[in-house]
Amino acid sequence: MPLHRFYYAKGLFSAQDKQEIAERITKIYTGYDLPAFYVDVIFIEVSEDSIFISGKPAPKFVRVVSQHLARTMASYEVKQAVLDQLEAAFGPYVKDRGLDWEIHIEEHERELWRTQGINPPMPNTDAEKLWVKENRAIPFE
Amino acid sequence: MPLHRFYYAKGLFSAQDKQEIAERITKIYTGYDLPAFYVDVIFIEVSEDSIFISGKPAPKFVRVVSQHLARTMASYEVKQAVLDQLEAAFGPYVKDRGLDWEIHIEEHERELWRTQGINPPMPNTDAEKLWVKENRAIPFE
Amino acid sequence: MPLHRFYYAKGLFSAQDKQEIAERITKIYTGYDLPAFYVDVIFIEVSEDSIFISGKPAPKFVRVVSQHLARTMASYEVKQAVLDQLEAAFGPYVKDRGLDWEIHIEEHERELWRTQGINPPMPNTDAEKLWVKENRAIPFE
Repeated sequence: MPLHRFYYAKGLFSAQDKQEIAERITKIYTGYDLPAFYVDVIFIEVSEDSIFISGKPAPKFVRVVSQHLARTMASYEVKQAVLDQLEAAFGPYVKDRGLDWEIHIEEHERELWRTQGINPPMPNTDAEKLWVKENRAIPFE
Repeated sequence: MPLHRFYYAKGLFSAQDKQEIAERITKIYTGYDLPAFYVDVIFIEVSEDSIFISGKPAPKFVRVVSQHLARTMASYEVKQAVLDQLEAAFGPYVKDRGLDWEIHIEEHERELWRTQGINPPMPNTDAEKLWVKENRAIPFE
Repeated sequence: MPLHRFYYAKGLFSAQDKQEIAERITKIYTGYDLPAFYVDVIFIEVSEDSIFISGKPAPKFVRVVSQHLARTMASYEVKQAVLDQLEAAFGPYVKDRGLDWEIHIEEHERELWRTQGINPPMPNTDAEKLWVKENRAIPFE
């Protein structure tokens, strides 16, 4: 569900970094009682001459595009809390290394979303709880 | 118009697979009387250590992000029908091979869309019919 | 803020082309008194067998996906003016070389956007003016 795409110049993150970032982001959502397998993290690595900020090459810049489908964030406070959590998840690999970064989250329509051919269960239903427990898509109803 | 981006670990699809998936997706939209050239399909291949589900490497996972501009889907039923068609189009290359997958469709604003420098004609107009017939953008009005 | 992703078959643009396109796009936004560093341009190059139009390989096609966060465009006329400017920015590298192209702009939610860990200042505030002048994110209020 939450799909997180990281764009940056190849070489900024090691395989181990990517693994750890994905794990740390996943924990945010399991903390909200979402199934772990909802969390997709994809690292889109481009060549150093393919990413620009201010019209200048940006080899030390990480752009994150996050998309949410399973939940909508009801208030400004919740939105900021989720941004805080995401930035904390990748902070040790980005901010703490002196890289620049930018992020935005988009909320998209749940009715237009399927995983393994199934429209995922509504929030906090028994079906969703089973998906959390089994960590896979299970036909329901 | 419909822009379909497929994200997955390099190697999952052959050149022939990609060609066939693109053809099958295109047929969905020509079936709705849209110009074939509206249909963009782009395969974004990442290294095996760059795509994660549940915080774990996901070398057998295909994430599809579809964006619609020319039409809006008026009801839940229409939305599910289009999802059915998309999943059927890539099913033989994904589900039938035992891969995992997830898809969502986004609807974006037609007024902020241009092809070949032209704001595309409105649905079912003579201009759109000409675009279908000629399969290219033709200035109108 | 404005994030511009260019998708195309590898080889269509040189490093110099990409640099110039990024500079030209950046100038659009500084012309609207936005900080230059808001402007992200990322070139996503795929292999020739990974991009399709009409279900056919499209080695001469450029697909641009632009996302806005700092401003919303208030009218149809403003939207068309911005599309005109973007198409003029990359026109010499695309249209004038006989390539095909398509673009859409999306507007996303400002409250879900951060750069360098900061929710950017509102339009035309003193804080935003300082960000323009210094061309970097500076904590405020």
